[in-house]
Order: sequence, then C-alpha cells, then structure tokens
Amino acid sequence: MSSIFTRIIDGDIPCYKIHEDDNHIAFLDIRPIKLGHILVVPKKEIDYIFQLDLPQYEDLWRFVRKVAKAMKKSIDCNRIGISVVGLEVPHVHVHLIPINKISDLNFEADREVFSKEQMTQVAKLISNEI
Amino acid sequence: MSSIFTRIIDGDIPCYKIHEDDNHIAFLDIRPIKLGHILVVPKKEIDYIFQLDLPQYEDLWRFVRKVAKAMKKSIDCNRIGISVVGLEVPHVHVHLIPINKISDLNFEADREVFSKEQMTQVAKLISNEI
Repeated sequence: MSSIFTRIIDGDIPCYKIHEDDNHIAFLDIRPIKLGHILVVPKKEIDYIFQLDLPQYEDLWRFVRKVAKAMKKSIDCNRIGISVVGLEVPHVHVHLIPINKISDLNFEADREVFSKEQMTQVAKLISNEI
Repeated sequence: MSSIFTRIIDGDIPCYKIHEDDNHIAFLDIRPIKLGHILVVPKKEIDYIFQLDLPQYEDLWRFVRKVAKAMKKSIDCNRIGISVVGLEVPHVHVHLIPINKISDLNFEADREVFSKEQMTQVAKLISNEI
C-alpha cells in the first residue's frame, strides 16, 4: 500500500502544489497549523529521515531551503519553523510553518480550516517566489 | 553581547557536551522536553537557519545527522524528531528530541527536571556512539 504522500505524488490525490523537482515535492498541508504550512516530501518512499542516504538527505535539505526562502518572501511572519516528526505517515516529510510564536509549532493545537480560495491563493503566492 | 550559545561554545557557561567539530557543537538542552534532548549549534553566531550560506547550511545538516544517529543508537525511542524554532535565542539551533508520541515535540509542555547524574549518563551514552 502506497503512502498518502506517494498517492499525492502520483496524482491520485489532489494537492495544492508549491514546487516539484525530480526527487521532491512541496505542497500545502491540508490540515495546516497556520496558513501556508507546507510539507516537503522526497518522492522515494522512505520512512525515517535519517534512513536517507547522505546525498538524498542533503538534496532534501537544499530543496527545503529553496521552499522556505520563498515562503518567507510571500508570508508575513517572524520566520519559517521546521519540524520533522514522522510518527503518523511512514514517508519522510518536513513541516515548514510560518511562525510568530512558539505555539505556531504546536502539533497538538487545534487546526484552522481555510477556504479553497485562501489555500489556492497562498500556494500561488509562494510558488511564484520560487 | 554574545548569545548564550556563544558563551557555551567559549566555555564561559558549562554544558553537557555531546560532540564538537570546527564549526558546530552539540550539547544537552538544559531544560529538556525529554531526557536526551539535544541542541546542535553552528559556532558562527547567525540568527536564522535560512541565513546560513549553502555550504554552512549543508554542513550543519550533516553534523545533525551524525548526532541523531548516535542518539537513536543509545536511547530507546521510536525516532529522533527535529525542530527548528529560533524565536528565543538569536543564534541558530536545531532541537533533536527522542520521540515516541507527538506530545514529545511540544515546546509548550512542562519540562522535566533530570539529575546531574542522569544528564551526565545520557550525554556519555550518546557521545560514545559518535
């Protein structure tokens, strides 16, 4: 059974895509902590970030940097926070979240619901900066 | 005024050191969310992780990987979580935390206090794996 992220990568599940290269994809988290909350996912389905071999791991962090810089340019926030948890979906994913305060990185907080228009707009703003 | 991390790097403030190279240091967070919670800090005092130039940034993530692999070998946990917040101390630091559940990465949770003996022991266990 493919992970939910592989099904997004394969186009079987829609997403608000931000950016993509041969080995990675970035799209909006569908249950964002903050508007503009992004998941960066390597296309190869590997469970744990430290199981990536060194070139894959370095490649992932370079891709993360590119996306995070575009987020900071397009969203009003103090900075872009990073979180890698990985307990729920066994496919590496890096959370990038626009933060102003520590609670903006709390995964136990209630998630906000944004309209399709809001999600589409923020995705476009960010992807235009890449 | 130097950051608290520069003062640790300079030896003006003691720490439970895990590992060090020319450009980085890893030590136990003195207010850990979980026993074995580590901070990885580049020695150069830069505020924001995405302000590091690309070689510095890649070098940091390679160092993080080395430390995280040693943590996983020496601490009984599901995986090592990563968090980069940076709202409190204006000097890049990557949190590495042994996690079993999502609340283990909640910075708003009450911090546990561990004895000097517990901190010394876990620091030794991890550094021995590097």
